Formats: sequence, structure tokens, C-alpha cells
Amino acid sequence: MSGLNRKFWDSDPIEKLRVGPGFRLAAVDPDATPGFDGVVKKNADEALASGVGLLDSLQEKLYANSKAAAADGGGRKVLLVLQAMDTAGKGGIVRHVVGSVDPQGVRLTAFKAPTPEERAHDFLWRVRSRVPGPGLIGVFDRSHYEDVLIARVHELAPAEEIEARYGQIRQFEQDLVDDGTTIVKVMLQISSADQKERLLDRLDRPDKHWKYNPGDVDERMRWADYQTAYQIALERTSTPDAPWFVVPAGKKWYARLAVQHLLIDALERLNLDWPPAAFDVAAEKLRLAAT
Amino acid sequence: MSGLNRKFWDSDPIEKLRVGPGFRLAAVDPDATPGFDGVVKKNADEALASGVGLLDSLQEKLYANSKAAAADGGGRKVLLVLQAMDTAGKGGIVRHVVGSVDPQGVRLTAFKAPTPEERAHDFLWRVRSRVPGPGLIGVFDRSHYEDVLIARVHELAPAEEIEARYGQIRQFEQDLVDDGTTIVKVMLQISSADQKERLLDRLDRPDKHWKYNPGDVDERMRWADYQTAYQIALERTSTPDAPWFVVPAGKKWYARLAVQHLLIDALERLNLDWPPAAFDVAAEKLRLAAT
Repeated sequence: MSGLNRKFWDSDPIEKLRVGPGFRLAAVDPDATPGFDGVVKKNADEALASGVGLLDSLQEKLYANSKAAAADGGGRKVLLVLQAMDTAGKGGIVRHVVGSVDPQGVRLTAFKAPTPEERAHDFLWRVRSRVPGPGLIGVFDRSHYEDVLIARVHELAPAEEIEARYGQIRQFEQDLVDDGTTIVKVMLQISSADQKERLLDRLDRPDKHWKYNPGDVDERMRWADYQTAYQIALERTSTPDAPWFVVPAGKKWYARLAVQHLLIDALERLNLDWPPAAFDVAAEKLRLAAT
Repeated sequence: MSGLNRKFWDSDPIEKLRVGPGFRLAAVDPDATPGFDGVVKKNADEALASGVGLLDSLQEKLYANSKAAAADGGGRKVLLVLQAMDTAGKGGIVRHVVGSVDPQGVRLTAFKAPTPEERAHDFLWRVRSRVPGPGLIGVFDRSHYEDVLIARVHELAPAEEIEARYGQIRQFEQDLVDDGTTIVKVMLQISSADQKERLLDRLDRPDKHWKYNPGDVDERMRWADYQTAYQIALERTSTPDAPWFVVPAGKKWYARLAVQHLLIDALERLNLDWPPAAFDVAAEKLRLAAT
């Protein structure tokens, strides 16, 4: 992959991060840095900065092609799905990776607890309305996966209904893929000990109190149940066309770098070029010159 | 204003940019750099970079306060309205100024030609649905002002209806202000000669063709009519609570710096601090320690 800067990376991490047959979440080391071994954080900062320009130009091509897409039946789309336990760093990914992209090309949605109106519909209803249109990078901060994660842990729906959702999710995502969407699903994995430390940090700092919610501790007490729910979701919904990637997030710099690379890789595989002019360039130059 | 870095700025540009009584758009020099005289572009790059961190922390406080806002009746909001002739640099403002802010705190809307559904409602309908919620910075790339600009130039509505819109806009914006929204309205001003050069550049570069639309030349032919429509809109809708700022945009670096400063100034005037914890910090530390 040309998107991998060999100056920084030892090897492409994608295959190591992808959830395939036999995957076990419990075997993931949250402090690992696959593909980026033996280097220091300073190099990671440089690597992230070097990826910004590349991601930027790839995103601009994606966006540009959607402007010319009416002619060839619609532009491509990219959807980044972010899931994680609290404090794992989703916000940092949005800020430092997604935030480096032109905001005009990004459609970000943070899914919260469903509203009464959303609950009155099937669980995919609110998600369908937020999938990215042509030329856009959609970002889901939490997603339809909450309906097989928190919903499973807290038994928010009958067991058979939750069972059925895995298949509904696979179908939903396959439909998106068939419609021209590249889906990148990322779970950030941290250790329970790291979460405790990060929550404590929020309690220690008055400028972080607003990020803390007493409910975070209640959810934390269900850590093992969440890990089980993630394991099931990952193995049942990581498909060839919409694979999951589990990214170790004990080191925040690694998680950001890995997600940046996953996005760069997804965009590079689209092989986009600048779209041809849909007008007569020479004639337009003459019209413009006459003004 | 503490938001003004005296290392770079000679004087606060805000009063010079504000549209007040007797304002004449035709008297604005698009190549001027009010408050930033006698310096070179390199300094401007440094100044913009130095503002990024400040804007970032101010935005985070705005967002944080909305989380604690249920207690005190709702958080504050900021709305940046961007208007300009084609190629004046709205996109660059969105990318380089708005784009430096955490995307989780920004709600960006690019208003295009209205859809049939939007046309079936009053002209403010689509705009009302996109005003920022508590804690957010809303950004309008074009806005309800198109309904007194292109609509006036092309007579898209009866003259008396367009006349009535100025008052409707003033009332709409006053309602937003009364509801806790700080409105920053910016018109980027370039010269007709600069526009010609920038359009020609788009035609000369295959990687810019997607940004060019033959309709741009048609609109360009109505330059004087647009300037008149802007003059009327500016003088009728620049109010004490929702003033217009006309920012010279012949030098892109200046326009970005000026808009960044306008945002910083708007946020600083809110005098926000970190919101107090809505929970018992000591008790939460004990609960967390027990996990």
C-alpha cells in the first residue's frame, strides 16, 4: 500500500488489526502497536502529520468525484464506524484524525441514547438517515452496534430480537457496500485498568468534570459483560465486505495513527482521479475573458 | 481584547470591519489588511497557528457548559454566517478556520439552491432547522441572505416580498440572540479582477475543474447588481446585536486571520469558565476506587 509511509511503519498493520475467523478479543493486547514497533512517540507525531496531507488530498478527490457523479451514476462514499468502551479515545480520533479533514467533506454523527421517536422505529431507522451521501466521509461516533452491545448487556430488548439484529446489521451494511460505500469499522480496545485511570483523571481535574458521568462507573461494573457482547458482535458482523478492525488504544498515539491509516487505505483502494470537466474548457475561457 | 495577539496585530480590527451607519461597500479595499499592517504573510501563518489553540479551548468551554446547562436554563450558542461572491474564499475559511475546531462542536451547513420541499415553505424554514443547539458553533456557508441577494438580482420573488424579508431576517436573528446565540455575520469582499483571475485558475488546472461551473460566469456578469444587493442587505440587517463584518479577502491569509479573530472575540465575550461538577466528586472517587 502506497499509503503506508515506510519511514515510520515497519509493516502494514491492516491484516493484524482485521477481525477474521477465530478472532478472540481477550487476546488483544491494548498496549500493542502492530506495524509500528520499536519506535517512539515522537515518530508517531511525525507520522500522523505526514498522513494528514495524504488523507486530505484523497478526501478532496472523493468529494470532487461526487460533483461529477451525475453522469456516471453516483459517487463513492466512506463510512467510519467507531465503537469503544468509555475513555478509549473515540473523541480523540474524531478530533485529531477526522478533524484533519476538510469539514465540508465529513458528516459526523454522535449517537446518544435513542429518543422516544427513534425508539418508536426499528433500531436501524435513525442510522439509515445518517449514512453518508456521495463524496462524503460519514463518521459514526457510536452506532447501530449499541443495539447489540448496551442492549445485550442491559437486556433492553428480548433475547431473540437481539439475536436477529446481527443478521439485520450484516444485510444493512451489505446494502450500503453494494450502493458504493466503503465501510471501515473500528473498535478501540483499552484495558480495564487504563479505563479506571482515565476516569480518575477526569475526577481529578475540574476542567474534565464535564466529561464525567456517574453512569460511567455503573457501566464499568459490567466490563466483562461488555467484552462478551463485543466478542459476539465482532465475530458475527465482521464480513469480507465490511470487516471490523480492533485497534489497541492503550497508547492514544497508536490508535490515531492506525485509524488514519485505515482511512487512507480505504480511500486509496477507490483509485480515484480528478474527474474530467463536464464543460468545454476552451469555450469557458473565452466566455470568462469576455467579462 | 485578550484574544488579540499583540505580537502579530497592530490594532483590533473589529471596529474597522463592522458595518455601521453610513457604511459603503464600494469604499472597502479588498486588498486591505486592517489591524495587520506592515507585516508579511509568514507572520500571518504564525498568527493563525497561535489562534488555533485559543479558539480550541474557548470552543471546548462552550461545549462543556452545554453539558451542564440543564441546571441553568440552556447553554450558549454561536452562529457564523458566511456570505461572498464566488471564489472569495468561503471554502478556505471553513477548512482552515472552522476546520481547526473539534468537529464534535461544529454544525456546518452549506446552503444550495433550495429544493422543491424547501421552496414550498417560507424562506427561513430551512435555516431555522439548522441553527446551532446549545454548546455548538453553527456555520452557514451561504444562508438566508441568499434570499435577498440572488433572489433580488434574479427577481426570484416579487419586489415587495423581498422588501419584507429584511425585516423578517432582523426579527429572526433577534430571536436567536434573545435565545442565547451570538451571531457573527461575515461578508468576504474581493475585487472583480481577483474573481476573474481565480476562475481562470480553476479553468487552467485539471484538479480544479470540479470546482468550476459555467453558471459562475453568468453570475459574474451581474457583478454590479450583486454589489448593490449586498450594500442594501448589509445596511438593513447590520444591527447592534447581529452586526455584519465585511472582511477584505483579496489576501486569503488576512481573511482567515480576521474571521478567526472574530470567532475568538465572540467566544471570549461569553466569559465562560469550566462548569462545576453536577455530582459529588469525592463520592465518585470512592465508587470508582471500589471497581
